[in-house]
This record gives sequence, C-alpha cells and structure tokens, in this order.
Amino acid sequence: MTPLARAEQLFAALAEMSADPPGVTRASFGPGENAAHAIIRREAVSLGFETCTDEIGHLYVTLPGSDRTLPVLMTGSHLDSVPHGGNFDGAAGVLAGLVLLERLAGGGPPPCDVTLMAIRAEEMIWFPEHYLGSRAAFGLLPRDTPDRLRRSDSDRTLANHMTEAGFDAQAIREGRPQLDPARIGAFLETHIEQGPVLVEAGCPVGIVRAIRGNIRHRYCRIDGETTHAGGVPRQSRRDAVLAGVELVSALEAHWLEVEESGKDMVLTLGEFSTDPTTHGITKVPGRLTFTIDVRSQDDAVLDRFEQDLQTRAAEIAQKRGVHIDLGHHTQAVAAPMSTEIQQSLRAAAQSCGVPHMDLASGGGHDCATFASQGIPSGMLFIRNRNGSHNPDEHMDFEDFAAACDVLFAWARDYLSRLRTDLPAPD
Amino acid sequence: MTPLARAEQLFAALAEMSADPPGVTRASFGPGENAAHAIIRREAVSLGFETCTDEIGHLYVTLPGSDRTLPVLMTGSHLDSVPHGGNFDGAAGVLAGLVLLERLAGGGPPPCDVTLMAIRAEEMIWFPEHYLGSRAAFGLLPRDTPDRLRRSDSDRTLANHMTEAGFDAQAIREGRPQLDPARIGAFLETHIEQGPVLVEAGCPVGIVRAIRGNIRHRYCRIDGETTHAGGVPRQSRRDAVLAGVELVSALEAHWLEVEESGKDMVLTLGEFSTDPTTHGITKVPGRLTFTIDVRSQDDAVLDRFEQDLQTRAAEIAQKRGVHIDLGHHTQAVAAPMSTEIQQSLRAAAQSCGVPHMDLASGGGHDCATFASQGIPSGMLFIRNRNGSHNPDEHMDFEDFAAACDVLFAWARDYLSRLRTDLPAPD
Repeated sequence: MTPLARAEQLFAALAEMSADPPGVTRASFGPGENAAHAIIRREAVSLGFETCTDEIGHLYVTLPGSDRTLPVLMTGSHLDSVPHGGNFDGAAGVLAGLVLLERLAGGGPPPCDVTLMAIRAEEMIWFPEHYLGSRAAFGLLPRDTPDRLRRSDSDRTLANHMTEAGFDAQAIREGRPQLDPARIGAFLETHIEQGPVLVEAGCPVGIVRAIRGNIRHRYCRIDGETTHAGGVPRQSRRDAVLAGVELVSALEAHWLEVEESGKDMVLTLGEFSTDPTTHGITKVPGRLTFTIDVRSQDDAVLDRFEQDLQTRAAEIAQKRGVHIDLGHHTQAVAAPMSTEIQQSLRAAAQSCGVPHMDLASGGGHDCATFASQGIPSGMLFIRNRNGSHNPDEHMDFEDFAAACDVLFAWARDYLSRLRTDLPAPD
Repeated sequence: MTPLARAEQLFAALAEMSADPPGVTRASFGPGENAAHAIIRREAVSLGFETCTDEIGHLYVTLPGSDRTLPVLMTGSHLDSVPHGGNFDGAAGVLAGLVLLERLAGGGPPPCDVTLMAIRAEEMIWFPEHYLGSRAAFGLLPRDTPDRLRRSDSDRTLANHMTEAGFDAQAIREGRPQLDPARIGAFLETHIEQGPVLVEAGCPVGIVRAIRGNIRHRYCRIDGETTHAGGVPRQSRRDAVLAGVELVSALEAHWLEVEESGKDMVLTLGEFSTDPTTHGITKVPGRLTFTIDVRSQDDAVLDRFEQDLQTRAAEIAQKRGVHIDLGHHTQAVAAPMSTEIQQSLRAAAQSCGVPHMDLASGGGHDCATFASQGIPSGMLFIRNRNGSHNPDEHMDFEDFAAACDVLFAWARDYLSRLRTDLPAPD
C-alpha cells in the first residue's frame, strides 16, 4: 500500500470511530481523541517506527536518524476536534506527518531523528486555555491548571479527564516539561486552512507568515434597566442594547482604521444577546451579554485595541448610565513563522509544481507554542472549503497529496542541508 | 364602608385570586380575568347597580340616569394582566370607576346613565392584536381574528378561549358591534402611569395629551454567514451582528433628529440576539434576530421612521452581503385626547388641590379605540413606581384616592353641564 492510500484509509478509520452526526466529535482527553491516538500508534508500530507517549498523553512516532544526538526534525498537529466538527482539522497534519516518515524511511536513515507528534487538547472549546496540550508539553501552564479548568461538556476537571484517559496531571502541577526546545531543530505543522483564502485564490497550499495572536473576552455584560418601552422617555432610559450598539460601532471604526493603516486585524462579536428569560418587544432591554474575539499578527495592534475597548466602554457607560463589565480576558501573543522555513517551503512548493501563496493564520495553532520557545517553526496550510469547526469542512484528497509532496520536498531539503553541515570525514 | 375602603378590599381580593408569584397573572379570557370580572360583578350587584355582560365578555356596571335616552358617560379599563404582572395595571381604572359610581349614587340619579366598563383582553402579550377587547366591542376586528389568533401561553385560538370562558366568537366573526359610539357622550380611562414621569415630577396624577401610536416589528432577522472568526478576512465576512449594529446606529440617529425637531418618539429594540444554538465566541455570527417597537403621538413620525427603516435595511443588506427580513409589522395609530376633556380634568385637579401635569401615554390603552370612534375621550394617569408589566409596580393608595377625587370632580362637572344643557322646563 502506498503511504497516501494508507492515509486515506486512516482518515476513514478516524471518521468512523469518532462519528457523531453531523460530523465527528473527539473531545480533548475524551473517547474520540483517545481512539484517534490508538489508531495512529497501532499503525506506526506496524510500520516499524519507534513510538512513545509522554506523561501528558502526547504520542511521538520517530524515524531514527543516523546521529541521534542531533536536534530532531519534528512535525505534527492535534487529534481532538470540536463537537460535530470535521474530520480533517488537526488530523490532516498528523497523517501528513505519517506519510512523510514513511517516505523518508524509504531512503535510508536520515541524519537526525524525524518525529511526528500527535498533540493532545488543542481545541479550546473543551478547556478554556490556549494551546493546552502543547503548552503542557513545554511545562508552560499555570500549575493550578489541571484542578481549575473544567471541560465544557462534563464540567469535570482536566485532572479528572487526564486520569480517566490514563495519564497524570502531576507533571502539569509540578511544571515538568516533556520537551526540551534545544532538542528540536525545527517544527513544521500541516493544517487545513480555516478560512476561504486559498479557495478564493485557487491555491492548494498556503505558507503561513504568522499565526495571529488574539485577545478574547468571553463574558462581557452591559447592565442597564428594564423598563416599559412606551412610558419611559429617552433621557430616563438605560438601554443595554443601544449602549452595546454604540460600543460595537466604535470598535468596528477602530478596525477599519487599523486596516487602512495597512495592519492586520480581525474582530468578531460571535455572541450578542439580550436576556431571553426577561427580554420582550415592549421592554427597554436591561441586559446584554456578548463576546469579543480580536486577532492580529501584530501584538501592538491587539494592545491598542484592548486599550481603546476599555476607554470606549468606560465613556459609554458614563454617558448612558449603564454598567459595562468586560470580564476577564485571555491573550495569546502573535507568532511569526521562521523566515527561513517560509522561504524553503516556497522553494519546495515550486520544485513540486504546486501553486501556493503566503497568508496569515487566523486560527491559533500549536505551532505558535513551538515558535514561542525559539524553535524555528513553520506552517503549511491545505485548501479547505466551508471553513472548519463544522461538519461541512471539505479538503480535497488531491490537495492533501499536494501538501504531502511539499512537506516531503521541504524535509528532504532540510535534511540534506544538515548533512552538508556535518564535518567532512577525515 | 367608604367607597375607598371597599376599593382597597377589592384590590386585595383581585391580588389574592390571581396570585402567581412573583406578581399576578390574569390571562385574557383565562381564569384570572374571569375571576376578576366575577368579583367586580358581585360587588356591583350588592351595591344595587345594573350589570350586564355583552357577547364578548365585557362587563357593564350602570348607575341609571334620569334620562336614559341621553348618551352615556362611560369610564373603565381592563382587568387582564401580563404574566407575573402587577395588580394595578388596568384594575385601578375599574376600581376608580366603581368608586365614582358609588359616590355619584349618593347624590341622586345623574342626568344620564353613568357606566363603568370592565374591558376584556387588553394585554397584547396574550393575543398579538392591539386593543383586542375594545376593538371587538365596536366591531372593528378583522372577521378571521377569533380563528387566526392564538394565545401565547396555550397556542389555542381566541375562539377556543372565548368559548371556554362562556362567550361566543360569532359576534366577532360577523363584525357585530356591542357598543354604538353615538350612544357614548364621553369616555374616561383611569390607569397607572407605565413610566417614571409622574414620579420624577412629584405629581400624583397626570392628564394625558395623546396615546402614542406605534409600529411593531416582532420578527426581524438578519442572515449572513457563520464562519471562522480567525480565518476569514473582513471583505469575505457576512457578519449579521455588525449589520444589525449599523442598522440600529442609523435608527438611533433618526430618533435623535426627530427629538431635535421637537417631535415625540421613543424607540426600543427589546430583543436582540444571535442564535444561541449555533453562535460562539470564535464564529462570525451568521444570524441575528430582533424586535423593533417605535411609538409617537404623531402618525407622520411613525410613517417616516418606517420608510427610513426599510431604506436603511436595504442599503445595509446590499453593502454587507446579508439578507435583512423585517417581517410583518403591526401599526396602531396615535390617539389625541379630547382637548375639552383635558381642560376640564385640569380644572377638576385644580379644584381638588391635587398636583398634576400633562404628559403623553407611551403605552397603548383601550381609550385609543374610543377616541378612534369619535367619542370625546380622556385619560387620567396615576403615579406609579418601578414601571408596569412587572411584579414591582407600585401605586401608593393615597395617589389612587387623589385620582378618584379628580375623577369625581370631573364627572360632577360633566354632569352638571349636561343639566344646564337640558331644555328649561315649561
């Protein structure tokens, strides 16, 4: 069987064992994710690769190199999914890594170890922490994380779910890293694109310039006063919706200014709602809750946005006699990808004759964690229709094959340059 | 027992038999409304007044006049309430009418009949039709109303609920009026104020200049596209929330212009919500639903608003690539109150030493139906804290007593002018 035919079979196996119509569900440290890890591990063992699982539950599949003391070339992605998500988000990068290892194995031992990492717990919908799995691997999580975070579907702690999956949260509580950045020569993550940019441009693959950082406010609330829609004059109203509308108008204007100055930013108010238990057509709305998600390749843009948000909210609250609570926010810093890797990925795509383009990653990816550790990191996007995080995501298998070709060409180039870097024999 | 002490007892009896904590519930043609009608009827009979109930279920309590051919002086209000509403909204006007009849009865027969009407089905939350009961009384409802409208709590038709309450929808189906406008010399409705104007001004009573008309859109919807909050650039988004925010900003600007031109208007978007089953912090919102309620004493203001709303919605839909559906809307025309009655109410308040002021009625009231039939009509508002349509509405009993005094003084003046209008005896 060819490596690509095997990947096609594995995609089908993953979809089958995590089917939850419509789509698939592979909760972080849940049955779907556990089964996906078992499938990849079984396949890797049958192919003769080294496998190991760390304290957190990450799976490593290794093609040993001729000099095992050299920093490792690592690739990988995550195996969890959102509820009723698509089968390719995350899994495509793991299967592309397996194809890479099998192809490289055909050419004799590479100069250094080449390792596929199947990462745990990337989808933030389960536990509200960015890059939970990969940050745990580098010992970067706050130590109270396992006992503080609860999974959105079960309301049980991360520690509880890790134990159930056969792992131990003690490593996180003690801040014990599973990976040493100095031991990783480069990290490359293949992933489906989550937006329409490659579809619109007609490119099967994209080379990521940077992973946007983000600021997220999950629990914004405006409290005004619920009163009669007819009897209360404008000056006596404390209308939560009109206050929210003024705030969002100001934020959209801020967005347009940032774009006009040539900077990168996207802004989303995904949830925006009066209180369904008390609102009504003939009542001045007294409460509005909403979320804010802002992303940029440029941390300074995020910081300025946050400052403007706080200022505007205070002004509007004062002016309209409402209380605006923006709640706690989380922040993920932007992660520029290695320029060298971007360049060599472009050359690899060129050499394979695969049309490609540069783009920013709007979604966050574990690759940002590797980049934050000073590891030369890069991302290869695969064209994907209908967005991700929904059962309609659609990657053509030919596009996956094209990405595998680019990844292989890039890795061969990386490894060959390693060889020439070796001291000449006496 | 004094008439006021009796009213106090009756308020308590109404609250007790319709208690539905918090507050009271007297659904149109439901058990609470039926029981309230029975309580008033029993009391009226025991006081020796004539009583009758028409085909719709309205109760009439009459103090017969010396000339029964003269047009009747009528007062009254409704006895239904919103779910978990307050005890005074509607009922205060009925009990004030009973106090009036008892006080007038003490002075011998008035020149014309004086009739208290306890009206059915005013609260639009039960059946989505303005002034359902009073319009039925004048034969003004579309003939399919009884079989088309369904009660919001039961989803059963008006006809069904009328039958259950012991009445017959056939009169509505055949457009048969229960009242003849030519037989009503004047109509005066006493009602608690639903806003804070009297509280803020420190006046126990208010004299209504006009009942605001309104336009209501109950089912507005914006459909855009749900996509990934990170991966989709601004130009490719079809964000329902941002489209809704732009529309509401434009409507609020319109409101401010109307007010600056010295005209009356209030605007409320009481419900405004992304779809809780599909929205999320990391998704561009693809759907927004909302309501619009706009009111004015001036029908031209309402018409211009509606025109602007339609134009803006079309522009924004076009510009942002979303679909905006403003749904069906209902319209109630504005009802100016009789200038003569306003003037004589002011004189009556003056003569009683009761502080008073003029104001607009933001809420709709059955009195608008009487005014629309060319009947000289007026409204007396009673100061009320915490708004209405909620269990916290609060009318001080002294303010009710003050309103009863004004009503009595006004009615005596009205009746005395009738006497002088009578031809002198030979």
